Amino acid sequence: MNDMTNFTKIKDIGEFGLIRRIGELTSHSLPSGFTGIGDDCAIIPGSLGAQYAVSTDLLVEGVHFVKSEIGGRDLGYKSLAVNLSDLAAAGATPCGAFLSLALPEDTDVEFVDEFSKGFDEISKAYGCPLLGGDTTGSKSGIVVNVCVIGHRGKNATVSRSGSKPGDIICVTGALGDSGAGLEYVLNPALERDEIAVELIKRHHRPVPRVEEGKFLAQRPEAHSMMDISDGVASDLPHILERSSVSAEVELENLPVSDLLQNKYGSQPSKLYHYALHGGEDYELLLTVDSRYYADLSAGFEKKFGKPLCAIGRIVAGDECKARYIENGFGMMPGGAPWSHFC
Amino acid sequence: MNDMTNFTKIKDIGEFGLIRRIGELTSHSLPSGFTGIGDDCAIIPGSLGAQYAVSTDLLVEGVHFVKSEIGGRDLGYKSLAVNLSDLAAAGATPCGAFLSLALPEDTDVEFVDEFSKGFDEISKAYGCPLLGGDTTGSKSGIVVNVCVIGHRGKNATVSRSGSKPGDIICVTGALGDSGAGLEYVLNPALERDEIAVELIKRHHRPVPRVEEGKFLAQRPEAHSMMDISDGVASDLPHILERSSVSAEVELENLPVSDLLQNKYGSQPSKLYHYALHGGEDYELLLTVDSRYYADLSAGFEKKFGKPLCAIGRIVAGDECKARYIENGFGMMPGGAPWSHFC
Repeated sequence: MNDMTNFTKIKDIGEFGLIRRIGELTSHSLPSGFTGIGDDCAIIPGSLGAQYAVSTDLLVEGVHFVKSEIGGRDLGYKSLAVNLSDLAAAGATPCGAFLSLALPEDTDVEFVDEFSKGFDEISKAYGCPLLGGDTTGSKSGIVVNVCVIGHRGKNATVSRSGSKPGDIICVTGALGDSGAGLEYVLNPALERDEIAVELIKRHHRPVPRVEEGKFLAQRPEAHSMMDISDGVASDLPHILERSSVSAEVELENLPVSDLLQNKYGSQPSKLYHYALHGGEDYELLLTVDSRYYADLSAGFEKKFGKPLCAIGRIVAGDECKARYIENGFGMMPGGAPWSHFC
Repeated sequence: MNDMTNFTKIKDIGEFGLIRRIGELTSHSLPSGFTGIGDDCAIIPGSLGAQYAVSTDLLVEGVHFVKSEIGGRDLGYKSLAVNLSDLAAAGATPCGAFLSLALPEDTDVEFVDEFSKGFDEISKAYGCPLLGGDTTGSKSGIVVNVCVIGHRGKNATVSRSGSKPGDIICVTGALGDSGAGLEYVLNPALERDEIAVELIKRHHRPVPRVEEGKFLAQRPEAHSMMDISDGVASDLPHILERSSVSAEVELENLPVSDLLQNKYGSQPSKLYHYALHGGEDYELLLTVDSRYYADLSAGFEKKFGKPLCAIGRIVAGDECKARYIENGFGMMPGGAPWSHFC
């Protein structure tokens, strides 16, 4: 008789179930100074207290992007941008990138040229040269994997696991633009006004917050940090679980851009939806010792021209749940969670 | 009028044309101590002269493997094995691996479990823990990308570019088994005897020569080294081009296993074909100062129980071509080159 597990599909266990399963079946004790699965970057110790931070992200046609919408140049740009965002979350300075590219054999060379130019543009802007990779054919769509390596000094020790009750939860910028842009990408029939075009651009050209991450990671009052790739509602629980704490988030405090405010200001539920669930904003999410929040935010604003937006607080509670509050009343956010198995 | 390049497809320029094109469009000067595209691994300098070696390999269903033939366990094993082979070519000790996995949502969880077990098996055997990665859905087949990081001391400086006229060209073991095994994988109707089953196993479970690579990389008499992933006929030219030399290879000296000898001993052209073009043997290919070859091979044999097989010699000639010699008569090898865009 077949064991029931023979019939379980990965869509039944989801992305995080899958990661947990692979992690359990491959875990072995790491050498001293190494950290592995669970943060935005793994850490490999170098000499003299220096550390290497490493991360990798896979983009699959039809899952992460629509080729005809994104085009070669923005795909090249975004492939590296999302990885640089992981280095930002670890407070690491980029060293170099590795690009793996699977392409159908009838792909236009011009597409690859545009891809290379977009990749090169952000590579040069962030000082992250292409150091190697792999290319191959693909029987179906385009697949891009980028692996990045950065370094950080011994004072940068931020991870997802340091949050404490009382911490202020902050983000480094507006949320929801990318998710709102994705709506247009997925529904080509929707009419596109100027705002829509800009939102799509935010989806295709996220700005990794590398300098912001480096600034924050060396502040001991920044207790935890990660980048927002799947939306606050999906990402905050990673910090909560790794730190064994819970959270309260004030929906009205979620920062949104003027663009989003103009477009959906009269529909707060839509604004909250994009800001919480949109995904791919690639701002940083962090929790800060409340005693130092005002000073840190002032220092951040002086350097980057914008404050750290406080969106809630960490509370005790090892159920590791976030409670979302609107006008003082608790609620659970609606909408389906972001998943690359959807 | 459209520029003609608009109509060029990547199948027209091939894998190496593609790599060259991406390399040219993304090149910028690397910081001191870094090496990038062109070797099996990129090198990132650490402190105190230590170096990190990094490589990445992408495996795509239908291009690199047939899911029903390889099965989850061997796919997990092979995904890491081929990357460890790149570290071997750089003489680096594995530090850790990063796994990106795109899976159709109806993939059995059992397949993923088997994959994880195979990955874990070789990960533990080579001391190369899984440190991170990414998982996602796939609209078509399975895609696996692995990125590995190793470290090496300051005495290990071997690359592909150090060969000199007079060098002996060597390999660390038998060639052609994997390519012969692939024939059965691609032609399921072929009858499989015991030898066939073993050849298929060699194709699915290559042995990365990490200890051999570490031993050889710190010998200054080993002038160039790489791993054989595409077959000697495809891989040797990389050394020749990077070193600006040419080569002569004696077909009768290509080492083949007893298995292959038993199966195709009466068909030397078939033996030569597999040994030269088979691909995926993952032995090391190196060129050694002829004055020290005998000593190095004896030391190698003492440690690893087998000599370094001399298959030819490096000659002057910046056309960077290899001449293949059978019974003293020059010939060019037949057969189509190995390509993942075939």
